[in-house]
Amino acid sequence: MRHSRREFIKQLGWGTAALATTRYWGCRGKSPGPSKPNIIVIFADDLGYGDLGVFGNPTIHTPQLDRMASEGQKWTSFYSACSVCTPSRAALLTGRLPIRSGMCSDINRVLFPNSTGGLPDSEITLAEALKTMGYVTTCVGKWHLGHLPPYLPTRHGFDSYFGIPYSNDMDSRGIKGAFADPKSEYWNVPLMRDEDIIERPARQETLTRRYTEEVLKFINSQKDKPFFLYLAHTFPHVPLFRSEEFSGRSLRGLFGDVIEEIDWSTGRILDTLRDLGLDRRTLVVFTSDNGPWLSYRQQGGSAGGLRGGKGSTFEGGMREPTLFWWPGQVSPGLEMSLGSTLDIFPTACCLAGVDVPSDRTMDGFDLGPALFGENPSPRDIMFFYRGTRIFAVRKGPYKAHFITRSGYGPDKEVSHDPPLVYHLNHDPAEKYNIAEQHTEIIEDIRLEVERHRQSLIPVKNQLDERI
Amino acid sequence: MRHSRREFIKQLGWGTAALATTRYWGCRGKSPGPSKPNIIVIFADDLGYGDLGVFGNPTIHTPQLDRMASEGQKWTSFYSACSVCTPSRAALLTGRLPIRSGMCSDINRVLFPNSTGGLPDSEITLAEALKTMGYVTTCVGKWHLGHLPPYLPTRHGFDSYFGIPYSNDMDSRGIKGAFADPKSEYWNVPLMRDEDIIERPARQETLTRRYTEEVLKFINSQKDKPFFLYLAHTFPHVPLFRSEEFSGRSLRGLFGDVIEEIDWSTGRILDTLRDLGLDRRTLVVFTSDNGPWLSYRQQGGSAGGLRGGKGSTFEGGMREPTLFWWPGQVSPGLEMSLGSTLDIFPTACCLAGVDVPSDRTMDGFDLGPALFGENPSPRDIMFFYRGTRIFAVRKGPYKAHFITRSGYGPDKEVSHDPPLVYHLNHDPAEKYNIAEQHTEIIEDIRLEVERHRQSLIPVKNQLDERI
Repeated sequence: MRHSRREFIKQLGWGTAALATTRYWGCRGKSPGPSKPNIIVIFADDLGYGDLGVFGNPTIHTPQLDRMASEGQKWTSFYSACSVCTPSRAALLTGRLPIRSGMCSDINRVLFPNSTGGLPDSEITLAEALKTMGYVTTCVGKWHLGHLPPYLPTRHGFDSYFGIPYSNDMDSRGIKGAFADPKSEYWNVPLMRDEDIIERPARQETLTRRYTEEVLKFINSQKDKPFFLYLAHTFPHVPLFRSEEFSGRSLRGLFGDVIEEIDWSTGRILDTLRDLGLDRRTLVVFTSDNGPWLSYRQQGGSAGGLRGGKGSTFEGGMREPTLFWWPGQVSPGLEMSLGSTLDIFPTACCLAGVDVPSDRTMDGFDLGPALFGENPSPRDIMFFYRGTRIFAVRKGPYKAHFITRSGYGPDKEVSHDPPLVYHLNHDPAEKYNIAEQHTEIIEDIRLEVERHRQSLIPVKNQLDERI
Repeated sequence: MRHSRREFIKQLGWGTAALATTRYWGCRGKSPGPSKPNIIVIFADDLGYGDLGVFGNPTIHTPQLDRMASEGQKWTSFYSACSVCTPSRAALLTGRLPIRSGMCSDINRVLFPNSTGGLPDSEITLAEALKTMGYVTTCVGKWHLGHLPPYLPTRHGFDSYFGIPYSNDMDSRGIKGAFADPKSEYWNVPLMRDEDIIERPARQETLTRRYTEEVLKFINSQKDKPFFLYLAHTFPHVPLFRSEEFSGRSLRGLFGDVIEEIDWSTGRILDTLRDLGLDRRTLVVFTSDNGPWLSYRQQGGSAGGLRGGKGSTFEGGMREPTLFWWPGQVSPGLEMSLGSTLDIFPTACCLAGVDVPSDRTMDGFDLGPALFGENPSPRDIMFFYRGTRIFAVRKGPYKAHFITRSGYGPDKEVSHDPPLVYHLNHDPAEKYNIAEQHTEIIEDIRLEVERHRQSLIPVKNQLDERI
C-alpha cells in the first residue's frame, strides 16, 4: 500500500493544475477516530532539518522525538511557509501565506520591539476557528505576531498566554560576548502572562522548563472540552539557554543541550497524554518555524544534507523536521509527500468539524488522507517567498528558483532566467541544475505563479511601521 | 545510564594516550549471550552516510533497515578504514590497516582487472580466525582483494564463494552512455562460484536478488555449527542495476531503487533468522566500504550533512551508516562513541572465543562493551589514510587534517600546517576550523602519529603490479 501511494505521488502534480485556486480547500478524508480531538502544535524556533536523531543528526540525542517518530509519522518533505519567524508564524496560525495578511515585508523581515504592527484583527487564527467548536485554547511560548495589546494571543482566540512576545535576542543590552557566554541579564526580553509582563528580563535558562510545566498544568486541568495547545518554544533560537539540569548534557555542546531539553519536554507532554488516557484523543504535531541560523556557526543548527538555512529559500531554509503523532489514528511510518505548516489550519479544522472561512483564499490543504493512511498529501505545490516576492516554487518533485540569495549574509540576490531547476526527490541537496532538460516544467511553474498572483489582494504591510 | 556513558565518552581520549599500542587489543566485555554466535556482515558498496531513512534520507524508503536500527544499535560515528574499495575490504577482513598488509598504494588506489596482487597469504582473515572455532564460512558478493587464484575467498578461509571478483564498472566494454542507461552487456565482469567463472558478463540486474537467494540458502542449510557470512553487495557502486521488481520503485530514482532492493534483501535475511529461531544467536552488522561516489551526481549517493564523499578523508568519505543487530543481546538505541570496520574482526573473535593473533599489530578494538550496553566503545582514535599516507587523524572529538584533497576530482592535494582542526561532535560537517584555539590537541595528535608510525613494518605493495 505504501508503494501504491508513492506511485500516486509520482503521478500527482501534473493533472491538477487546472483546478487553480479551487483546489485550495476542502476536507479530503475522514478521521476514523473520535471527533473533536485535542490538537497540540509544538513549534521549535530555528531548528534545522538535520538536528534530530531521527533526521540523521550524529551527536544530538533525541530519544523522545525519535520515539514519537516511530510511533507516528515522520514527514520528510514538510515546509514552513517562510524562512523567518514572523511570517512563518502568521502562516501557521492562519493557514494563509503571509502575503495575504500583510505579515511580510522586503524591508523588515520580522517584527521588532519597536514595531507597531501585528497580525490584523481581520485574520482568523486556528485558535479562533477551533473556539467555534468549543475548544479551550492556550498559547505558551514565543508569539512574535505583534506585542502591542491589540495583537497579543489573547486578542487572537487564545484563552490564555504565557511566554515571550518576540525573539529572545531582541532587546539586547549591547553587552559584548552576549552570544558566546549568554546570560539572561544581557537581554531585556519580557515574560508575559496573558497581557501582563510578569518578569523582565525573562530568565531565559528557565523558559523551556517553565513552558513545559505550564503545558502540563494546562493539560491536566482539562475536563470535558477539547483543547488546542500551541507551544512555540523560544529555542534553539540564539542566545541559547537551557536549565541547569541540561547543562553539559549533550555531546553536541550548548546547542545540543538546548535540543535535548526540548526533546525532554516533548517526552513529558506525550507521557502526560498517555497517563491521562488522552493519547488516543490528541493529535500532536512537532515542527519548526524555519531552518537553522547558520550565521551562528556551532550555536546554530544543521540542515543536514539540505542546502542553505534560515532566511534562505533553498530547502535548508524551509524544509522542517516534522512529526505527526496520534496513537491508533495516525498511521506510523515515513511520509514523503508534500506538507506545509499552512496545512495545519485546515487539517485541524477538518478534524474538529469547523467550517473553514469561505470569504478568503486559504493556502492550506487537509492532510487527513496522508495522516490516516488513505492517500498521499493533496499538496503538490509550494511557493517560496522572501518578503513579498516569490523566489522559488516547488511543483511535484521540481523546484524552480527565479531568484536566490543566502539566508542572512551580506550577499546580493541573483536572478535566474531561465530559473535554476532541481528535482528534489532525486536531488534534495539542490546541487544539479536540470533547467535545460525541463523547459516544459519552467513554463508550467510560470503559469502557476501567474495564477497565484491573481489570487493576491493588496493589504496593509504590518512589518514596516516602527516607532 | 545512557548519560553516564556519554560522560565517559567525553572524558575518554585524553587519559589513554600513554597506553600506546598496548591499548590495541583485548576482549573488553563479556557477551551475556550464547557463545559462538553466528556472525553476519552485510557490506554495501559506496553507500553514503545520508542514504538510509534512519540516517535522514528524505526520499529513499528503507523500512527494513529502519526497523533493524530500531531493534538494534545505530552507530553514528562508525568509520570504514579507507575511503576506497580494496583497502577498506582488506581492513575489514583482517582487523588491520591496509598499510600493514600492503593493500594500499599511492599510485593505484584499488586493484584492477590487470592487477596481479592481492591479499597476502600471511594475513589472517576473520574467516580463517573463526574457522579455528569450527565456524562454517561463506563469502557472497564483491571480493576485490585479488582475483587471481591465490587470492580468492576460498584461499582466505571461506568455505564457499559466490560473486564478482572486483568492481562492477571494471572490464568496461567502452560503450558510450554506459552509465546513463546501464545494460549488463556493456561490461564484462565475471560472476564466480568458488574458483570458477560461471557467467560472463554477470547479469548485473540479477545480482542483489541472487546474492540474497544464495545467502538464504546458506542460512537455511546450517545445522549445528556456527557460521560466518560475509555479504558484500555489488551496489550501489555504479553502474546501477536492480531487478525488474524494483524498477521505478523509489522516489529517489534509479539510485533509490538500488538501495530499496538492498533494504529488501536485508529484511529477508533478518526475517529468515527470525523464522529459523536464529535471531537470538546471530550478530548482524550492516555498514559500507566507503562514502558516496559524488562524481556520479544523482547516480551517486549522499553523505547527508557530512563533507566530502568516496575517496576523501573528510567525514563523508569514511563515516558509514552502521547498524548492529542481535535481539536480546545488543542493547537497542543510538551509539555515538567511535567504531570502525577494523573493530569487527576483534569483536567477532571475542564473541567466538578465538585467540586473536599476537604476532602482529591489530588495529581493531572489541566493541562488545558498547554493543552490550556496558560502556562506550574503547576506540578513541582513527587514522585517515589516503594510500600509504596519513591525511588526517581523529582523536576523541577532534580531527586534524594534515593534508586534504577531494575524493576523485582533478584537484591537487593541499598541505596544512598547522593542520585544520574540527570538533566533530559539535561540527560533524567540518566547517569551522578551530586549530588556533587548540594547539595542545595538535601536539597530542602529532605524538599519536609518531607512535603509530613506529608500529609500521615495510611490506610488499600489492596494488601496483599490473600486467
